[in-house]
Amino acid sequence: MTFRIGLIGSGYMGRAHAIAFRAASAVFDLPVDPELEVLADIDAETARSAAASLGFTRSTGDWRQLVADPLVDLVDITTPNIMHVEMASAAIDAGKHVYCEKPLAPTAAEARPLVEAAEAAGVLTMVGLNYLKNPITALAKEIIDSGEIGEVFAFRGAHFEDYMLDPSTLVSPWRFDPRSGDGVVADLGSHIVSIARYLLGPIVSVAADRRTVIGERTSSEGETMTVEVADEMDSLMRFASGATGTVAASWIATGRKMALGCEVRGTEGALVIDFERLNELQLYTTGQPVGREGFTRILAGPAHKDYASFVPAPGHQLGFNDLKAIEVRDLVEGIASPDGRPWPDFREAWEVQRVIDAIIASDGRGAWFDVDDVD
Amino acid sequence: MTFRIGLIGSGYMGRAHAIAFRAASAVFDLPVDPELEVLADIDAETARSAAASLGFTRSTGDWRQLVADPLVDLVDITTPNIMHVEMASAAIDAGKHVYCEKPLAPTAAEARPLVEAAEAAGVLTMVGLNYLKNPITALAKEIIDSGEIGEVFAFRGAHFEDYMLDPSTLVSPWRFDPRSGDGVVADLGSHIVSIARYLLGPIVSVAADRRTVIGERTSSEGETMTVEVADEMDSLMRFASGATGTVAASWIATGRKMALGCEVRGTEGALVIDFERLNELQLYTTGQPVGREGFTRILAGPAHKDYASFVPAPGHQLGFNDLKAIEVRDLVEGIASPDGRPWPDFREAWEVQRVIDAIIASDGRGAWFDVDDVD
Amino acid sequence: MTFRIGLIGSGYMGRAHAIAFRAASAVFDLPVDPELEVLADIDAETARSAAASLGFTRSTGDWRQLVADPLVDLVDITTPNIMHVEMASAAIDAGKHVYCEKPLAPTAAEARPLVEAAEAAGVLTMVGLNYLKNPITALAKEIIDSGEIGEVFAFRGAHFEDYMLDPSTLVSPWRFDPRSGDGVVADLGSHIVSIARYLLGPIVSVAADRRTVIGERTSSEGETMTVEVADEMDSLMRFASGATGTVAASWIATGRKMALGCEVRGTEGALVIDFERLNELQLYTTGQPVGREGFTRILAGPAHKDYASFVPAPGHQLGFNDLKAIEVRDLVEGIASPDGRPWPDFREAWEVQRVIDAIIASDGRGAWFDVDDVD
Amino acid sequence: MTFRIGLIGSGYMGRAHAIAFRAASAVFDLPVDPELEVLADIDAETARSAAASLGFTRSTGDWRQLVADPLVDLVDITTPNIMHVEMASAAIDAGKHVYCEKPLAPTAAEARPLVEAAEAAGVLTMVGLNYLKNPITALAKEIIDSGEIGEVFAFRGAHFEDYMLDPSTLVSPWRFDPRSGDGVVADLGSHIVSIARYLLGPIVSVAADRRTVIGERTSSEGETMTVEVADEMDSLMRFASGATGTVAASWIATGRKMALGCEVRGTEGALVIDFERLNELQLYTTGQPVGREGFTRILAGPAHKDYASFVPAPGHQLGFNDLKAIEVRDLVEGIASPDGRPWPDFREAWEVQRVIDAIIASDGRGAWFDVDDVD
Repeated sequence: MTFRIGLIGSGYMGRAHAIAFRAASAVFDLPVDPELEVLADIDAETARSAAASLGFTRSTGDWRQLVADPLVDLVDITTPNIMHVEMASAAIDAGKHVYCEKPLAPTAAEARPLVEAAEAAGVLTMVGLNYLKNPITALAKEIIDSGEIGEVFAFRGAHFEDYMLDPSTLVSPWRFDPRSGDGVVADLGSHIVSIARYLLGPIVSVAADRRTVIGERTSSEGETMTVEVADEMDSLMRFASGATGTVAASWIATGRKMALGCEVRGTEGALVIDFERLNELQLYTTGQPVGREGFTRILAGPAHKDYASFVPAPGHQLGFNDLKAIEVRDLVEGIASPDGRPWPDFREAWEVQRVIDAIIASDGRGAWFDVDDVD
Repeated sequence: MTFRIGLIGSGYMGRAHAIAFRAASAVFDLPVDPELEVLADIDAETARSAAASLGFTRSTGDWRQLVADPLVDLVDITTPNIMHVEMASAAIDAGKHVYCEKPLAPTAAEARPLVEAAEAAGVLTMVGLNYLKNPITALAKEIIDSGEIGEVFAFRGAHFEDYMLDPSTLVSPWRFDPRSGDGVVADLGSHIVSIARYLLGPIVSVAADRRTVIGERTSSEGETMTVEVADEMDSLMRFASGATGTVAASWIATGRKMALGCEVRGTEGALVIDFERLNELQLYTTGQPVGREGFTRILAGPAHKDYASFVPAPGHQLGFNDLKAIEVRDLVEGIASPDGRPWPDFREAWEVQRVIDAIIASDGRGAWFDVDDVD
Repeated sequence: MTFRIGLIGSGYMGRAHAIAFRAASAVFDLPVDPELEVLADIDAETARSAAASLGFTRSTGDWRQLVADPLVDLVDITTPNIMHVEMASAAIDAGKHVYCEKPLAPTAAEARPLVEAAEAAGVLTMVGLNYLKNPITALAKEIIDSGEIGEVFAFRGAHFEDYMLDPSTLVSPWRFDPRSGDGVVADLGSHIVSIARYLLGPIVSVAADRRTVIGERTSSEGETMTVEVADEMDSLMRFASGATGTVAASWIATGRKMALGCEVRGTEGALVIDFERLNELQLYTTGQPVGREGFTRILAGPAHKDYASFVPAPGHQLGFNDLKAIEVRDLVEGIASPDGRPWPDFREAWEVQRVIDAIIASDGRGAWFDVDDVD
Repeated sequence: MTFRIGLIGSGYMGRAHAIAFRAASAVFDLPVDPELEVLADIDAETARSAAASLGFTRSTGDWRQLVADPLVDLVDITTPNIMHVEMASAAIDAGKHVYCEKPLAPTAAEARPLVEAAEAAGVLTMVGLNYLKNPITALAKEIIDSGEIGEVFAFRGAHFEDYMLDPSTLVSPWRFDPRSGDGVVADLGSHIVSIARYLLGPIVSVAADRRTVIGERTSSEGETMTVEVADEMDSLMRFASGATGTVAASWIATGRKMALGCEVRGTEGALVIDFERLNELQLYTTGQPVGREGFTRILAGPAHKDYASFVPAPGHQLGFNDLKAIEVRDLVEGIASPDGRPWPDFREAWEVQRVIDAIIASDGRGAWFDVDDVD
């Protein structure tokens, strides 16, 4: 089989995908080598230059041409959020597998048709919720699923960064267009919600508070914009398992650069992850001898999933780009293996989006909102 | 003037008060030396023995006798929570100054008469919210009030311990009697609410979620008890200043021993405190040179309030008992100085309790609740 | 019996001793209550004022009078280092028990006669190496002695502070008088050497490097002084047990405030202590499941020696002054109990000093030096 | 120009080089794209299979053939240490540029002819001391060189891991053959010595202590081996700048997985790096306001050298393999640029080895040894 990629978008994330495809081939023993076939960007010249730099064979200034290209097996979407739905929809219609950066759609209602269309068309999909691919995230899940920390009853998660703290930073207007999604809730909230679901399972209801703290910002064109999307979000959550917890997100979390993480508490232990330290997990178990109890700082190592493919010695650390390589490995294996199925797929992205929508609905009402009541 | 103390209760907290009175005299230059005059406990023999061990001159098995004792200037209440109101009320009626362990009363409605009675009687009061006395707490307030971190817009606070995690630990029934207060909300919630108010000012509304995770426990008498009070509480908060935030408490927070702390975010900086490391504050300010930004770990030292009274060198650390000594110093100075007024007084304790009550009311309704709507 | 204290010196350390005697009575159930009988200082007026403030019954401007006072059971020496030998010697001659701040003497040769005199006179002695009294230090020893970390083969210890970093800080000339001891080697080196001996046993040889980094300083009188004592010291060590290691000290360790600590490595585990976090120990053991290995951060708690006397809940922390209270408790019990014997006594202080002297001798030679070759 | 690589060895490090060459092309804008031309391994079949998996065009079971291959521009040596000298020598003789894993040679005396031959032949060289390429290492150097921490007077460095702690781990005999180098001194000592030189400049003399703690080990063939090389090394050092310090290495450092790092102290500040947290640097400067002093934890970000080529947001972290990609970028640019010169080259490796040899010589003598006295 072939695995020819058509990449739309050559900004930061497009480049990250290109790096990841090359790295995955080198690091993993893939069932098929992905080929960088076509790159599309806003115009032919931008596309040509990016294709040369990133190693694509061909280029185009028209993404619809890429989608229609018979040599393309997979359409990879890394454009601004507001374009994801239209592009993914076209790719599915063309019978292509689709790899799309998160968020898939600004609302669950807009995501659902994509899920249904993809499943009907029999194409495979994946959404780039890359932190799910960290070996430390997998370790957290293994610890929870194995019962090592007993019955899990509490989750406290957050994704805090501060890249939007300065109101005078020039910003892309699309990031503040509510049609792209609700600011930090879409941008960072989706990461921590996906981790919450991955580790504890379905979320049934939420009570949330959103705030726009910085009411005016300066656009990249130097104009003052009134901001309507959220800068901060805090929420209370109830899981189908009976566990409860909190989920928060902020892109004005002063001083925080990559504080995505959570504390998970069970009847026999607890674990903490914080991706400002991507290669560490803290584990507490109640079975320690009296006077020897405490959180143990576990460094990622070859005993953990996927780590040994990168480096054979513990403590030597993976970086952000390595997570993306693991994601691409899962994508390639999911598509190329007989019974494969990449994950997180569009359906999972829709589930995450339903929680996001419930957060916004709860905030509007000032009361709890059931995820199942999301359209 | 004299400062003769009548202490009711000789359990852990009674003993801690006795130690604190002795330490305060040694560490600080007090306007008057407190005298350990009478100790009351459940019966005459317990009281006699404790008085001898803790250095009190006299003892009694009848706390009402202590309250009525003309030589007693201050009644110090360290009994189980459920008895605080009756004892404080009697002490005020007898014209004594009152020092009472938190919580003052199980509800704001029960606390308010004490506030009014004390103010009418002209007696001075203090409640033992000891973490407010940590030099690091004072440093946090100084940083906020000075504008060093700009305009504060977010507060994230919690008090997590795990001493109630094991359902088979024998517990005092009064700790689980709702008339004593709502479990962890009263026990630990009061600490973090008092810190939130101290640092950011009045709280106007809350949306909260309480849970009883462990439905049955074993009492000290070995009987199975059905638990009605909260093991965990999470809440969203809005402050009068316009800031928002979260406040949480749990006494089943697996692995946490003294995780009382908060993160405060402002437009020009942020600070973090965590009293598992009582002598540290982490400070971020936006004015650092490019590539040199980060949280600075500040160790308590003589530049900070009260520290130098204990030890002249930085990094040498205060302990929990030292906080209690500072509290007692504030009590003695507040009473003995011409215009003094100890703080936090009963009025502040009532304000804290109103927030606690609003948390419980919000949880009952599943919606936001205004603190001013607390009876 | 009586336990009447005669304290010489009312500076910082004298005051710390007074606080400790009062605290020890409150915190511990002592066999006899220490009485603050006489305080001596440089002149009668200073002594009188300090005695009033610290709670001593009487005062004197002549320390020899205090030593001769028949009511004094214990002479407590907290004066500048240079006076320790003369005072301790006089106290022993007067048949008093002696409690002396470290270092006991500037050289082992000067310390040895005190050891012999005290043992001949049958008086009991103690030296204030307070960090040996930290419950976390005791925990480290318990872990080592129990075999939990297997056979110990390596020790890496240091005591780093930076209070002498600024050359323009006005300093007491006696601190830089070589007759007081060799600067940081005496001042901080004694702490880490005493911990090394406590945890791993006798040291047999050392190879050391001393440096005077700041060659000129300003005295309290504003004069420029040429500095002859060490600002920094690094050394390699061999223990009688066969273990090896390093011991370092610096009082110009930029940014470090109380970095006294060590890492101890055994065949089945390792532990780390750092007294900038006085209430923590990090423990690694090799027996953890694959993928769960790591250092566990243990917080001091009631399971550890002496902690519960201060506070019954884990994580609530002791401070520096609490260590001094434990030291005083050991002193009182060591003297008042039938077969008691305070520790660390003058003999232990002499042993520590021999290592200090070997460090200086090794540095002079540029080669290894045997501790037994110290005079 | 062409940049065709001939790689010798396809073990862990060979694979890491292959990954790095591919990643460097994707991440950086290289002046020329490296081509994976020939791979040599112990036999033709191993080489063929590895070449296919790693993406090399051709393969050979005879490394001399690779060296002689006219299409090869660069010979890349990743074989066991004991073969480095012979292969590097042959490559130089064939007029090839050479990229060799550290250590270049077991002794400085064996390294020097390679340095001279390469310089005489005009071929360019590089040695894989990868931690020098960490953006955080570059940040440390920038901080030192800019004077931000004043005049540097002390360095404390170490490289601690514990992969040789278990005596029953099966080991490759060549790792314990003294002809390969002195155990941990060669294996890890070279990393920390190279960092010491990079940050503080030349080292003039050392006093060192080496130990073989585990005297017998089990070889991969299951035989008991007597161990002659060092498991641990501690040393005192003097730098040409006048600074002093310590350098240590251990491969039996219980619990440590990648503890390569150092503390550098200057008259106006200090910095700490520890590569178990590869993306962090702690910085202290004396100019902070009173009561706000402390170490600041700086997370790697786009403000630091090379980071932005991998990811544009701070706190998102690089991994070990990314360091190798930076190294390869330096190699390619150093060779392909008109006045380029890769670094660290063979001359630098020889300088590092002289310090290693001085460590061994000092240990043998039990005294200080001048680096210039190394043959």
